[in-house]
Amino acid sequence: MNQPLSGTAFQDTYPDELSHCYGCGRLNEKGHQIKSYWDGEETVARFTPQPWHTAVPGFVYGGLIASLIDCHGTGSAAAAMCRAKGVEMGEADLMRFVTASLKVDYLRPTPLGGELELRGRIAEIKGRKVVVEITLSAKEEIRARGTVVAVRIPDRMAAGESAG
Amino acid sequence: MNQPLSGTAFQDTYPDELSHCYGCGRLNEKGHQIKSYWDGEETVARFTPQPWHTAVPGFVYGGLIASLIDCHGTGSAAAAMCRAKGVEMGEADLMRFVTASLKVDYLRPTPLGGELELRGRIAEIKGRKVVVEITLSAKEEIRARGTVVAVRIPDRMAAGESAG
Repeated sequence: MNQPLSGTAFQDTYPDELSHCYGCGRLNEKGHQIKSYWDGEETVARFTPQPWHTAVPGFVYGGLIASLIDCHGTGSAAAAMCRAKGVEMGEADLMRFVTASLKVDYLRPTPLGGELELRGRIAEIKGRKVVVEITLSAKEEIRARGTVVAVRIPDRMAAGESAG
Repeated sequence: MNQPLSGTAFQDTYPDELSHCYGCGRLNEKGHQIKSYWDGEETVARFTPQPWHTAVPGFVYGGLIASLIDCHGTGSAAAAMCRAKGVEMGEADLMRFVTASLKVDYLRPTPLGGELELRGRIAEIKGRKVVVEITLSAKEEIRARGTVVAVRIPDRMAAGESAG
């Protein structure tokens, strides 16, 4: 599972103003900066948790797992929409998705220490919506399964207008 | 929504060895340290995101929202189990739950800046399982709804044994 990933990370094609996400924004210095790539028909990302990302000692915090699935899901959704439309990421206005719904099943504890691998499969593309099914593995065993229902970002959100 | 919370936070009754969670452990100096309380039949927690907990500028990161719902859910599950059994939290071996399944629906964007409020309702207690329905509000409007299916922590996980 540790072959190097190649190509341009989806998140590195986001415009600057949409690159501040705590989970995946390349401009968020305090964030996780996760990077997702195509691997054939699947999408893949890897992430090594920090020692403080703990649930109980020895195991990864479930909130981090949910966060990684979330950001890998929205990134995968953007990449899938661009691929479906036949455009390069970064060329089009298609590339930033937000999460409408997130579901995570924690199948077994995820050991802390070492790399996690996320793999995404595009389950559906319809209108502004993309559904991504994701597995999260550690030590080559699936630990969690997630489903992300992602939708293209609303214009007012992209513009940074307050929803308050 | 800003009345002070009273009583002992659920998470402050966890034994030291189970107080390292990034989301709610009082001993995790880098974590969120969320605190959940009873408010009648509901549970409540409040949290103010940091400026870097951003999705796109002006809005809260969905992964943080999932994390808060997750930890408020497991805390609420422990409190509900103790209340159902008629024991004080901290007295019994009932008080630490992990998440089997987490579902979050993001209903509308959550503005960044100011306090979030989480409210939990105990939907089911059965055997080792507790289901908690949670809302997350900002500026007195519900922004996300979550369901946490929590189960009492497996013994090997509580003991810090590797699951790898």
